[in-house]
Amino acid sequence: MKIQAAIDRVDLDKAVNLTKQISQYVDIIEWGTSLVKDFGIQRLAEKTDAFGHAQILYDSKTIDEGEYEFKAGFESKADILTVMGAASVATLKKCYQVAQNQDKTMMIDLMGLDEAQIKIILGFDQAIYCIHHSKDSGKIKNASDTAASFRASFPSVKHIAIAGGIDYANTVALAKQGIVDIAIVGSAIVKAADPVAEAKRFGKVVSDEK
Amino acid sequence: MKIQAAIDRVDLDKAVNLTKQISQYVDIIEWGTSLVKDFGIQRLAEKTDAFGHAQILYDSKTIDEGEYEFKAGFESKADILTVMGAASVATLKKCYQVAQNQDKTMMIDLMGLDEAQIKIILGFDQAIYCIHHSKDSGKIKNASDTAASFRASFPSVKHIAIAGGIDYANTVALAKQGIVDIAIVGSAIVKAADPVAEAKRFGKVVSDEK
Repeated sequence: MKIQAAIDRVDLDKAVNLTKQISQYVDIIEWGTSLVKDFGIQRLAEKTDAFGHAQILYDSKTIDEGEYEFKAGFESKADILTVMGAASVATLKKCYQVAQNQDKTMMIDLMGLDEAQIKIILGFDQAIYCIHHSKDSGKIKNASDTAASFRASFPSVKHIAIAGGIDYANTVALAKQGIVDIAIVGSAIVKAADPVAEAKRFGKVVSDEK
Repeated sequence: MKIQAAIDRVDLDKAVNLTKQISQYVDIIEWGTSLVKDFGIQRLAEKTDAFGHAQILYDSKTIDEGEYEFKAGFESKADILTVMGAASVATLKKCYQVAQNQDKTMMIDLMGLDEAQIKIILGFDQAIYCIHHSKDSGKIKNASDTAASFRASFPSVKHIAIAGGIDYANTVALAKQGIVDIAIVGSAIVKAADPVAEAKRFGKVVSDEK
């Protein structure tokens, strides 16, 4: 399992400083949608030194213009970009094609989709399917149960991530369970009194595994 | 009816120059999602002098974090912001609340929604419901028929816009028909050999009406 630390709704200097402090302890740094829309990926790309060894995910939440947005995002140094599962299948295919061509990764944000809608967008084998409760709808109650239920419903999905109020106990349980590839942690790391200590603690869950 | 000219997938200088040239002839200038994500709304806000008398729409395509994105967008000088109809009802409500509180406008992008999904998000009386075929799925075939069919299906919707390959003939027909509040025109103006001449021609459809 990998830990993805999500940084969102802060100014750019804060995002850069946080990234510098915590990127060595986690696998992926997510720069959230607010950073993309407030500052733009061209400006974000100027700050990628801060990411250290961690992979870079811009939470672009693409929902149309898949080819344009994915080309632009990867040119702006992203390793992983997100597309909404609610986008058209045509958009998902275009994003996937760009990601595959460039040896980069597409993450599909499943926010708001029911099982019937998810069935329509299966089959992107190298993509990461991200189980995600929207910020505006509240948190996931039990991450491990949610992951197990998703795996049972969609056994063909090869790569799974989970996001939405994931805390330390969730992360430990998810790592033990072994279903998800990526636990996406936001507030529990970046809004902690000591984000560095928390990044280390979450990172250790994963390094202990290896 | 109003004409909204949509500028997208160009660099920022080009967007500013185009806006300066055409904003006097149209009612609303849309700065598209690519401008939002490539350059960020903080940088877009520094360029609003170019808009002249026209209203400013950022095609933010908000799908979560409604309150944050709408507050940030209006602070960055937008008059109108877009939210995806595919967002949760909770997100739509938060966006609407911010727009109403600030005497600004929410446009709901109906891209990808079927009738049953649209029924769930009716009732935002001051919002503009935008009929929209995704860029990746192809153009609207007959804009007036589409508008008439939408009006028949959703008679309670007070404000309607339409987007997706709208050309001059569509615009003339839509103005005569009188169903939509806003015709959103992209390539037919901004990718024309002479965008200023086209902006004048489209603008005249509307001014002749008055």
